[in-house]
Amino acid sequence: MYGAGDVRVENVPDAGLVDPTDAVVRVTRACVCGSDLWPYAEMEPSTTGQSMGHEAIGVVEEVGPEVQTVRPGDVVIMPFAFSDGTCAFCREGLNTACVHVGFFGNNGVNGAQAEGLRVPFADGTLYPVSVAEDDASMASLLTLSDVMGTGHHAAVVAGVKPGRSVAVVGDGAVGLCGVIAAKRLGAEQIVIMGRHEDRLQLAREFGATDVVTDRGEEAVARIRELTGGFGTHAVLECVGTEQSAHTSVEIARPGGTVGRVGVPHYTSIPHAQPMFFKNVKVGGGPAPVRAYITELLPDILDGTIDPGRVFDRIVDLDGVPDGYQAMADRQAIKVMVKP
Amino acid sequence: MYGAGDVRVENVPDAGLVDPTDAVVRVTRACVCGSDLWPYAEMEPSTTGQSMGHEAIGVVEEVGPEVQTVRPGDVVIMPFAFSDGTCAFCREGLNTACVHVGFFGNNGVNGAQAEGLRVPFADGTLYPVSVAEDDASMASLLTLSDVMGTGHHAAVVAGVKPGRSVAVVGDGAVGLCGVIAAKRLGAEQIVIMGRHEDRLQLAREFGATDVVTDRGEEAVARIRELTGGFGTHAVLECVGTEQSAHTSVEIARPGGTVGRVGVPHYTSIPHAQPMFFKNVKVGGGPAPVRAYITELLPDILDGTIDPGRVFDRIVDLDGVPDGYQAMADRQAIKVMVKP
Repeated sequence: MYGAGDVRVENVPDAGLVDPTDAVVRVTRACVCGSDLWPYAEMEPSTTGQSMGHEAIGVVEEVGPEVQTVRPGDVVIMPFAFSDGTCAFCREGLNTACVHVGFFGNNGVNGAQAEGLRVPFADGTLYPVSVAEDDASMASLLTLSDVMGTGHHAAVVAGVKPGRSVAVVGDGAVGLCGVIAAKRLGAEQIVIMGRHEDRLQLAREFGATDVVTDRGEEAVARIRELTGGFGTHAVLECVGTEQSAHTSVEIARPGGTVGRVGVPHYTSIPHAQPMFFKNVKVGGGPAPVRAYITELLPDILDGTIDPGRVFDRIVDLDGVPDGYQAMADRQAIKVMVKP
Repeated sequence: MYGAGDVRVENVPDAGLVDPTDAVVRVTRACVCGSDLWPYAEMEPSTTGQSMGHEAIGVVEEVGPEVQTVRPGDVVIMPFAFSDGTCAFCREGLNTACVHVGFFGNNGVNGAQAEGLRVPFADGTLYPVSVAEDDASMASLLTLSDVMGTGHHAAVVAGVKPGRSVAVVGDGAVGLCGVIAAKRLGAEQIVIMGRHEDRLQLAREFGATDVVTDRGEEAVARIRELTGGFGTHAVLECVGTEQSAHTSVEIARPGGTVGRVGVPHYTSIPHAQPMFFKNVKVGGGPAPVRAYITELLPDILDGTIDPGRVFDRIVDLDGVPDGYQAMADRQAIKVMVKP
């Protein structure tokens, strides 16, 4: 990406090993992410450009001499962040706080909207799966690299439990996966907030019990109406705007929790005083999706959940610029890239 | 209180029953609270004045016809908030979100810096204890009406568990009780942040392992130094100023939690982006001290904890104005009122 709206497909040198803990992965599936739409809307023109893409499934081609757990030929899920797998944070399951954490496509590490890429800390980062590279579950497995794990994180942080009420703010792929996660964790009432009929329909199929298409104060009033006046136990904030932050805090039930997974485009959390008097908690951040794969994978393999349905367009590498535009125009929920 | 610095002791009509769920309590012990110092510093002159005091132990004098669980003669702990004890929030243990919640000294309900007062929802609010009204444990029992339960709430919200590191921001009575709570819940490292030597000494005796007397960026740097660079798992925010809010978020370890119990004198929670990238949670609010009494009372009665040591001055009703001044001047940690 060379600036807002300026995505180019270019030939670059082949990926290769640098550190002894690296792997090189041939990408079989990648994605365009809702978070990629922020630079697509706002990025200042750059002469060097930024390598894009942080979600992938691929096949290991080569490993460094210190790599132990993945071998050439393995089909692997590549989480959006790499992590060493051994530090205190990784051991606690917060891989996105790893002392060696990095995000694909940032700080000189190449992105996954590509034929292949170098993966640092291959043992801590990559998750091998015993399926063929064209398995029918591939779309759903791909969501474990980001959106399904991220929706799950919002639900976990927000304390979703059997019988609880949940509001999901945002009907993008993460919000839709948030609905799946909330239902999977036993939520009784799941309110999806958005305004795109195709997405809201998918949300209903994923388990949403109510739909709110209002915004701002009208949305807050509507949620209160739907919840006996109190708001929901859990709020999954899957957007990241100032407005969604406001709404999220306002619709939380006293004692409830907002789980934030939308990358915040605001600098402070509003309503610090009402939030205090309601004993509302706010948490969340980059999801440790690597840690969540173990829990979510079986439900995908046995068909209990099918988050791959968020992909409604497939492009090849040359089609990636069009894929960005389709997502920016809300003509696609989520674009899969098949190099 | 008729304005900043203007506390007067006046004769008022005797307390009496109004609703059938009321009790009238003769106050045997009350307190001046750190939160009372905010209006003592800032209140605009008022012609009607405000009845003060929300922490008390007393003896039930009279009960309404619907009161079931307390009887005249009972020694009772009076939490700072009244609650019906039956609504969904009370049943969840969040009595401070009760649908009938009210705070003593507010909205026409009299305060406890008095000879007696009317207590609404006596069954849900008052907690009878089987001790004589002059029992030696009285000072510690009195802290269950607010400061000990409030320090405990900060620790619970912040997720204090065995082995965790904790920073307590503020060395007032609540912060000191936060130290007790953190130790009681098994924290390994407890850092108290404050600047009053007498209080810091008491904090050490309560279980603090480290003391930080710096503020602002120096305090943040010092905490990082004490915690291997990462900050503490739990932060107990027991002040409520803009600065303490900043510091609290900054010193939380990735994945950690800030438990706020200082009444916020700021309108938004700062550092929303760094907090996100660190997966730091912020929660807390008015402590449901009524719900915590059951857990904390045995530890007081058997001497495991002795939070009553926060009281270092006793006044009678006529001495209340001096008590406010002593706390405002930081010459007393917490003032007990013995009518």
